[in-house]
Amino acid sequence: MIYLVGSGPGDPGLFTLKGVRCMQEAEAVVYDRLAPGALLGYARPEAEKIYVGKKPGNPTMSQEEINELLIEKGRAGMTVVRLKGGDPYIFGRGGEEALALQEAELPFEVVPGVTSGVAAPAYAGIPVTHRNVATSVTFVTGHEDPKKGSQDVDWAKLADGADTLVLYMGVGRLEEISTELFTAGREPDTPVACVR
Amino acid sequence: MIYLVGSGPGDPGLFTLKGVRCMQEAEAVVYDRLAPGALLGYARPEAEKIYVGKKPGNPTMSQEEINELLIEKGRAGMTVVRLKGGDPYIFGRGGEEALALQEAELPFEVVPGVTSGVAAPAYAGIPVTHRNVATSVTFVTGHEDPKKGSQDVDWAKLADGADTLVLYMGVGRLEEISTELFTAGREPDTPVACVR
Repeated sequence: MIYLVGSGPGDPGLFTLKGVRCMQEAEAVVYDRLAPGALLGYARPEAEKIYVGKKPGNPTMSQEEINELLIEKGRAGMTVVRLKGGDPYIFGRGGEEALALQEAELPFEVVPGVTSGVAAPAYAGIPVTHRNVATSVTFVTGHEDPKKGSQDVDWAKLADGADTLVLYMGVGRLEEISTELFTAGREPDTPVACVR
Repeated sequence: MIYLVGSGPGDPGLFTLKGVRCMQEAEAVVYDRLAPGALLGYARPEAEKIYVGKKPGNPTMSQEEINELLIEKGRAGMTVVRLKGGDPYIFGRGGEEALALQEAELPFEVVPGVTSGVAAPAYAGIPVTHRNVATSVTFVTGHEDPKKGSQDVDWAKLADGADTLVLYMGVGRLEEISTELFTAGREPDTPVACVR
């Protein structure tokens, strides 16, 4: 069994009980830069711990190599935890890992996590929805696959869409994104926060 | 101290470690219908457990009464957990409770939870974002405050906005919302899932 586990937004206290149980069962833990290091302490001492990097622009291992690694460990009959930052299915490429495992006919399970787009604003005192103020919230990646060009996110449509807009990994393109949003009609007095 | 705690989407395994610690400390637990009953087992036997309902259309206690209750317990010097379904700040009215506590000058802390808009699709096999398919996702309430009329959510703008659209509490207005979205230009072949 391969568990695709969300580690939450950084605070080890926001890890889930199911995540802890998966870590305790795991014979191999495949983790990246965004997973809080403290969580590795839940793994058994004899469990194999494999760091796969994912530093922006300098991945220790490509997504395809990570998929292959999960398949290899799964085929060896091991119980595997793939520990990911935040939630596996919110800009975590968990869907790609799930597809690869499904194609390899290996059993897997997703363990959702607290996503940083909700928790980081909350810790900063900002509810992303609020009655009579914001009845919708959009999460969008600010760091697209460079191969795709910048056209895959339609900022003009998002500018005029949901009440609250949360950018993940947007710091590198902050000026460009802000300009596109305000040009497309986002109110210039929109309150903004950068949470790191 | 009053903790506004997200209980997650229903699976008790998706409760957070910090949530458990808060429950263990609590002298009073104020919980509603959406919080999994199993989680009350983490509270001390002698802790006061107060059910505040929140069944749609038939609240046991109004939001204003819940705010007053939290303030009353806080002023009595008790450690309080306000246990809420999902995440406190995603359509959970946690922001209103936080404001009431702030105005009463009582110390509080938010403990985010896994939101059902991510976890329920994940358990149904659906990643709400996926590279090259969906680079943005909007969460929106499908059950607005009836006092506000239906104009507070601009479905036409959302129809044309983010790639994935997740409606919370939308089942009662499903037909009306679908019609508004498709009329506003959402592609008629958009894949749809209802997850309960």
